[in-house]
Amino acid sequence: MATMGNSTNIFWHECPVSKVDRQKLLNQQGCIVWITGLSGSGKSTLACSLGRQLHCRGKLSYVLDGDNLRHGLNKNLGFTPEDRTENIRRVGEVAKLFADAGLICIASLISPYRKDRDSCRALLPEKFIEVFLNMPLELCEGRDPKGLYKLARAGKIKGFTGIDDPYETPLNCEIEIRQEDGNCPTPNEMAGQVVSYLEDKGYLEA
Amino acid sequence: MATMGNSTNIFWHECPVSKVDRQKLLNQQGCIVWITGLSGSGKSTLACSLGRQLHCRGKLSYVLDGDNLRHGLNKNLGFTPEDRTENIRRVGEVAKLFADAGLICIASLISPYRKDRDSCRALLPEKFIEVFLNMPLELCEGRDPKGLYKLARAGKIKGFTGIDDPYETPLNCEIEIRQEDGNCPTPNEMAGQVVSYLEDKGYLEA
Repeated sequence: MATMGNSTNIFWHECPVSKVDRQKLLNQQGCIVWITGLSGSGKSTLACSLGRQLHCRGKLSYVLDGDNLRHGLNKNLGFTPEDRTENIRRVGEVAKLFADAGLICIASLISPYRKDRDSCRALLPEKFIEVFLNMPLELCEGRDPKGLYKLARAGKIKGFTGIDDPYETPLNCEIEIRQEDGNCPTPNEMAGQVVSYLEDKGYLEA
Repeated sequence: MATMGNSTNIFWHECPVSKVDRQKLLNQQGCIVWITGLSGSGKSTLACSLGRQLHCRGKLSYVLDGDNLRHGLNKNLGFTPEDRTENIRRVGEVAKLFADAGLICIASLISPYRKDRDSCRALLPEKFIEVFLNMPLELCEGRDPKGLYKLARAGKIKGFTGIDDPYETPLNCEIEIRQEDGNCPTPNEMAGQVVSYLEDKGYLEA
């Protein structure tokens, strides 16, 4: 190695870089945490809290936010059924790359159709953690953080999930987050539930 | 935080996760190392060597290989001019995400057109390191590791870079790797040249 000493040169030959090597470097296991749920269910909030809790433990995660990606990688996609599917497919493929890089990749998308979520799961079936943010429509609509439900009810947005387009409830999700006794868990509590799962399954060490 | 003690709970509030936080965790700075050059110039070899040298120093990198991505993220793209441009655009967008995650992202693509490379540079101009693998066509064609030059010369592949489609030499690349006195640098020497650059520019610490 031109710029390094002999001892490094020897070490070099024992230093092939695989997913396992990256995971050892990070002391964690790459995976995809796929957060699905209605608009306003708290996906971005959970993703953010989860990222912070993991960072506080020295773990490297990265959030792929459906809305944000539409400004970059997916900016050439609209909201036709084909484009929605392609949107989710690309996020799934990128999430797989991040997991391969050793990161805990947190994908946050409504992803209303079972078929699309299952296609992403199939990309990395043994490392795919589907988190269903199971909040009642009334709660989400009451929050309406982006004012989208109001527009959908007024007919100004067509094909809005939960209003005039279906949300297909996960059948096989790893984690379900819901209200308890009518109370919504806090963002920290929701993130804690995911962190506990990751810890139990051994993702937080190499 | 449901699953953690109070001290962590306090730390939590001082723990927003930004690019800077991830860089501190990794003790490096996210960036894009964009390797461009003719088919057979040694891009994948350099990418691999560079990844290994960085890993040996405890640095986290990830290789985005143009060919590999065509099996995943870009599998719905062909080789028309529009599809080639879209191929490179997507790789650029994904590389930007990896750099934002704090990784040294090594992108390895022929990327023959200046316009396409400059579009990727524009996504993250201050952290884009263009590496031009400047090897003579005769050398690359002599290697012909995939037998593609032979097919192109026989007219069985159309629009092959260097044969019947142009390779536009970078005008403003950060690193140029070339033969010295007719000798090709070894993969380790090439990677060492890039590592030295990264070190000089401060990318290998937070």
